[in-house]
Amino acid sequence: MPQTRLDIARIRAARQVIDPVFLDTPLYRCEPLGAALGCAVSVKLETANPVRSFKGRGTELVASLLADTGERAVVCASAGNLGQALAWSGRGRGLDVTVVASRFATVAKLDRIRALGARLELVDGDHEMARERAADIARRGGIRLVEDSLDIETCEGAATIGLELVDGAPSFDTVLIALGGGALATGVGHVLKAYAPEVEVICVQPLGAPAMTRSWRQRRVVTTESTDTIADGVAGRRPIPAVLDDLLQVADDAVLVQEASIVAGMRMLLEHAGLVVEPSAALGIAAILEDRDRFAGRHVVTIVCGGNVDLGAYHRWVGADPGHGS
Amino acid sequence: MPQTRLDIARIRAARQVIDPVFLDTPLYRCEPLGAALGCAVSVKLETANPVRSFKGRGTELVASLLADTGERAVVCASAGNLGQALAWSGRGRGLDVTVVASRFATVAKLDRIRALGARLELVDGDHEMARERAADIARRGGIRLVEDSLDIETCEGAATIGLELVDGAPSFDTVLIALGGGALATGVGHVLKAYAPEVEVICVQPLGAPAMTRSWRQRRVVTTESTDTIADGVAGRRPIPAVLDDLLQVADDAVLVQEASIVAGMRMLLEHAGLVVEPSAALGIAAILEDRDRFAGRHVVTIVCGGNVDLGAYHRWVGADPGHGS
Repeated sequence: MPQTRLDIARIRAARQVIDPVFLDTPLYRCEPLGAALGCAVSVKLETANPVRSFKGRGTELVASLLADTGERAVVCASAGNLGQALAWSGRGRGLDVTVVASRFATVAKLDRIRALGARLELVDGDHEMARERAADIARRGGIRLVEDSLDIETCEGAATIGLELVDGAPSFDTVLIALGGGALATGVGHVLKAYAPEVEVICVQPLGAPAMTRSWRQRRVVTTESTDTIADGVAGRRPIPAVLDDLLQVADDAVLVQEASIVAGMRMLLEHAGLVVEPSAALGIAAILEDRDRFAGRHVVTIVCGGNVDLGAYHRWVGADPGHGS
Repeated sequence: MPQTRLDIARIRAARQVIDPVFLDTPLYRCEPLGAALGCAVSVKLETANPVRSFKGRGTELVASLLADTGERAVVCASAGNLGQALAWSGRGRGLDVTVVASRFATVAKLDRIRALGARLELVDGDHEMARERAADIARRGGIRLVEDSLDIETCEGAATIGLELVDGAPSFDTVLIALGGGALATGVGHVLKAYAPEVEVICVQPLGAPAMTRSWRQRRVVTTESTDTIADGVAGRRPIPAVLDDLLQVADDAVLVQEASIVAGMRMLLEHAGLVVEPSAALGIAAILEDRDRFAGRHVVTIVCGGNVDLGAYHRWVGADPGHGS
């Protein structure tokens, strides 16, 4: 059993709290994608739910706990998906939700946060500035701050994906996981290492936002001065020490991919799987594209973790005419 | 209990035979889509599986029965989705699968049928000619012909979607179902009328392929000379009498929609739900668009029944730049 902050019994219990609309998501082999990549590829699809990302699993736990303890308000920083999910989960439990985001965040995500009834505050800086501002709001207002990847519920929610992957005998060799703050990677990784330690857990991060990967490689927190990636959902600069500690226990590798590979990955998911995904959700395919030999003949699961995009930008990325039809 | 060829006990038993990858598909409220349409819209998503349509539910039953009885070969006519699904289900059970299709069928569907190892025979005519040719192959070769919507397994497979809709207390008022041969409508309709008779079952067909809808309205089989629609999955001309009889028992209405509405529906599913769907899967949204008053304030479920498109055609339909991002 890996020694992390996570606990299997708590992760199992989480399934009883999370709205079923976020659970038991599709997991299926996508042969056209595999044929194009030279390996077997299965998709774990986390976009077919009311917030189009996996984040609802964690926010259901957070909001449920807050409601149970009588708290009325909660604030988080978000690149957009956590904020949407917290707004959704909080609304259903009468919580007053504030989301702090960068004003450069994906417009579609910000629109949805507002539409879900949350108070949205924009900062004139990046996600790390949003984190600082959210912490400030929490301190001043005496309200609960939700910190993605640090708060154990966000990791436990993500970890329920892991339970679904190991349900039955896993037939796959490798799981590719988008790496940002680390909740998804540590959550899913913990369950895999507990139940299927032979499965390789590979985290994938953009070269333009490499802080956590560099930290994992150096086994100490490494921060960066800036980020430069279209993968807005994973663009952090300051890894959280406790999350890094967990990641060191469960990740077999952490790789960095180029922006062009992320775009190519998004295009392949559209062409071969019919899926519109946000850049973070294409990191796994990008990793295969950058190292086909490593994955040749293997069975790889990629977690399609989010599908919230500005369609204008999406069309620019994937191209209006991808050239062929199948 | 509606008096059709279907039987609830058999439909329940079907769940034990169908590969779980086709079952318990996502069902979720899509608020952005509802906001754009003036009603509550829930999506039942049948595209996140290895063949990207609901047809696998039925072909699993067909192929399982054939394998159990020792048959080795099977033939079907298909616009593309049934053929893909039968190829998938047959391959897993060692069956020799032949699919007959129009040479004007969607290229992506034909490519997938071949890739799944089925023998593909193209006819120089429409789907009705493919049906004749498939029947001919079956007769001459003494092999089993699978007739979509006539063969009860195809209806029972579709009906398992109905079970998933009525699981728990249905909160919706109306279900919109694409109408082609009728398996989906009679299958889902039977279960709804059995368990939730107050839910309105509305079938939707293109104006350019109206044979079954006209038949339902006139309560007798009405054929047409030709079809003219991009919704290839539902473009039949010769309704099957036994299927019409069932449809008369379970459908509350059957409506016809224009091509422009189908395209607008596809565009809305992309913009507001992030879903790439084939034209047949947009029929429900098209019906709402053509009669907003009828659905205003109601809770509607639309079954997104397939997602196999030629991307070139898809981009022409929905437009490269849909104009706004959310």
